[in-house]
Amino acid sequence: MPLRFEIVAEDQATGARAGLLHTPHGTIETPVFMPVGTAGTVKGMTQAQLEELGVQILLANTYHLYLRPGHEIIHELGGLHRFMGWPHPILTDSGGFQVMSLKGLGRVTEDGVWFKSHLDGSSHFLSPERAVEVQCALGADIIMTLDECVEYPASREALHRAVKLTERWARRAKEKLAAVGGAGGWGPGTREEPSALSSQLSASEAQLGGQSPITNHQSQIPSPQPPAPSPSLFGIVQGGVDKDLRRESVEGLLELDFEGYAVGGLSVGEPKAEMYDVTEYTARFLPRDRPRYLMGVGTPEDLVECVARGIDMFDCVMPTRNARNGCVFTSQGKVVIKNARYARDDSPLDPACECPVCRRYSRSYIRHLFAAGEMLGAMLATWHNLRFYLDRMRKIRQSLVLGAFAEFHSRARAEL
Amino acid sequence: MPLRFEIVAEDQATGARAGLLHTPHGTIETPVFMPVGTAGTVKGMTQAQLEELGVQILLANTYHLYLRPGHEIIHELGGLHRFMGWPHPILTDSGGFQVMSLKGLGRVTEDGVWFKSHLDGSSHFLSPERAVEVQCALGADIIMTLDECVEYPASREALHRAVKLTERWARRAKEKLAAVGGAGGWGPGTREEPSALSSQLSASEAQLGGQSPITNHQSQIPSPQPPAPSPSLFGIVQGGVDKDLRRESVEGLLELDFEGYAVGGLSVGEPKAEMYDVTEYTARFLPRDRPRYLMGVGTPEDLVECVARGIDMFDCVMPTRNARNGCVFTSQGKVVIKNARYARDDSPLDPACECPVCRRYSRSYIRHLFAAGEMLGAMLATWHNLRFYLDRMRKIRQSLVLGAFAEFHSRARAEL
Repeated sequence: MPLRFEIVAEDQATGARAGLLHTPHGTIETPVFMPVGTAGTVKGMTQAQLEELGVQILLANTYHLYLRPGHEIIHELGGLHRFMGWPHPILTDSGGFQVMSLKGLGRVTEDGVWFKSHLDGSSHFLSPERAVEVQCALGADIIMTLDECVEYPASREALHRAVKLTERWARRAKEKLAAVGGAGGWGPGTREEPSALSSQLSASEAQLGGQSPITNHQSQIPSPQPPAPSPSLFGIVQGGVDKDLRRESVEGLLELDFEGYAVGGLSVGEPKAEMYDVTEYTARFLPRDRPRYLMGVGTPEDLVECVARGIDMFDCVMPTRNARNGCVFTSQGKVVIKNARYARDDSPLDPACECPVCRRYSRSYIRHLFAAGEMLGAMLATWHNLRFYLDRMRKIRQSLVLGAFAEFHSRARAEL
Repeated sequence: MPLRFEIVAEDQATGARAGLLHTPHGTIETPVFMPVGTAGTVKGMTQAQLEELGVQILLANTYHLYLRPGHEIIHELGGLHRFMGWPHPILTDSGGFQVMSLKGLGRVTEDGVWFKSHLDGSSHFLSPERAVEVQCALGADIIMTLDECVEYPASREALHRAVKLTERWARRAKEKLAAVGGAGGWGPGTREEPSALSSQLSASEAQLGGQSPITNHQSQIPSPQPPAPSPSLFGIVQGGVDKDLRRESVEGLLELDFEGYAVGGLSVGEPKAEMYDVTEYTARFLPRDRPRYLMGVGTPEDLVECVARGIDMFDCVMPTRNARNGCVFTSQGKVVIKNARYARDDSPLDPACECPVCRRYSRSYIRHLFAAGEMLGAMLATWHNLRFYLDRMRKIRQSLVLGAFAEFHSRARAEL
């Protein structure tokens, strides 16, 4: 099995759980926060620094890597792990969310999504099958089905349409993965050899009429290492803040038996209470023995609140994007480090933090770096913010393992 | 003595030497390359990464730090070492070169230099005394006298005027440093206590009519640590490519007895052969027992050629600036990593290099980072280029210590 999920502790009151997610590139302790490496890099961090922080799994972006440098190049060079120099787990999202968020540049059909590149305006088509192919070429450990993510607010009709389309696309993605050698279900599936995957990809390139510049190279340049084992596919639950639709979406996906389930379409503008409520309601219908991934969420508070609602995996650009804008997370709340008030502040970003940034640098120095437009400002703020998120998650997990989650949860709430 | 220079090996044929330069913040093995940290940061590198590279001394820029964040703030926060989180040696240049290079924004008088800030156009005056004060406030281990650097080509008259002005300024700088507690000469000088330095600085602020925003704060916020011992002052030889003037400049400075001597006004456009020739000629008249610093030079070839001409210390923006532009130094010559030809190149930047960048990342990945405008591209290229320079310098030193410099030198020439 490419993926195996083990629950090591569970909070009886809430259903929060701590687990181990075994992947071909290593075991992940859940609940886990996955830093976002959109274009195959977590902006401003070296891979060694991510390892030093204890990052267990990165998220990379299918849409961005498909456009640049191109998944064929990455495949040819041995896959994304090797390309990035990151020998640890990677999850790629399907690209659907990015296509949706490119307002006016995308068009959804039954077959898939037409979109124009934000880089050069060129036209591209992403079908559920194609999204699987691209993600297989990248070689991530965990891949996502193409889904339709609907903005908030949306009509029930639009949400229902998206739920059914996402379900049909999920089926097509599953069938495609099985055809190219993916897992048939949770149990061990029949797999073709990597070479078969490779030739399938070439064939599918040809079928799609792709004048891929790589085709000529594939026979000349040997792949530096065999492709990774075929990835594990997660289905994505949609339905906005409509509980009936969420339940319908879950039921449709369960029939397809995915290796994990994601809750998508949240954190798109709905009130926080509704996000929590829908997350809790949705997680209730997801199988206990599969990892649950809440996409694109969220704040440090969201982490503990959504673990309490049964979530195991999170990703969010907030710690990294905020850092580049000079906003850092601390035990005393957010600090906008660019502010003039920190010009003479000799204290660390967070006096309660023991990260390498807080041990070495002062607010005054980091404020200076931002004022002077120096790269190191964004680098240090990113490091600290990721540490803050990872540390928060480690404490959550620790409390679960020690059977003290209820206490941790109520203390976290009191601090708000 | 704040500074002590020890020669540990000397090449009889060329006069090239390996030494140890003992400073209040540690001992530097010479010949040494000093990475440039203009605004108190080597762009794209953390201080821990610089330590990992084996950087022994950084150069910071008086002009930039005076303007932003202001030397008073840095002094108040305990000096530049503490501000930057860099507990190792620092050299600050006087700011003269930057003022000269701000064409049209600077005006030289007998008293000093008037210039307009490149940041906000505000007017500032930098005298030889003020340059010493600012550098004392920063607390560098080695500071430079204010000099007049003349562009190439220049008339003999202009060069001669600059030589004499630089000499008068050097005398004033020396007297100012002695007054605020600096070293009187190479031997142990009389020194006032750090607190006296501090009050002198406040007094001089008042004399200059400076409505320094820090004045009110100084009594409120205690300095986190006592200021560093007073710095060692280097005089700067000028004279362009005119050997008589270079000799005249050296003789004027020798009378003032500096702790080290810099060769300035080179690498400003003159032919390479003239630069080497003038460096060799100038170094011949400098005292054997003082460190010699060639300012703003140069290429990897220049390092070995100018060590062969008796130079001990170098700084240059080339490895760092080129890196940010995607140009990396390798054992096989320069590589412009942005080029499309590297898109599928799975080899490291330099196959002969063992730096963390070359051990982990491929040309294709780094090329992708530059193409995508990702910070990590500049970060990795900077790391590699600095490693290339430091490694080159370590090999030069090693050959001197082993008595094999002539061999190293001729091999280096053959590789060109």
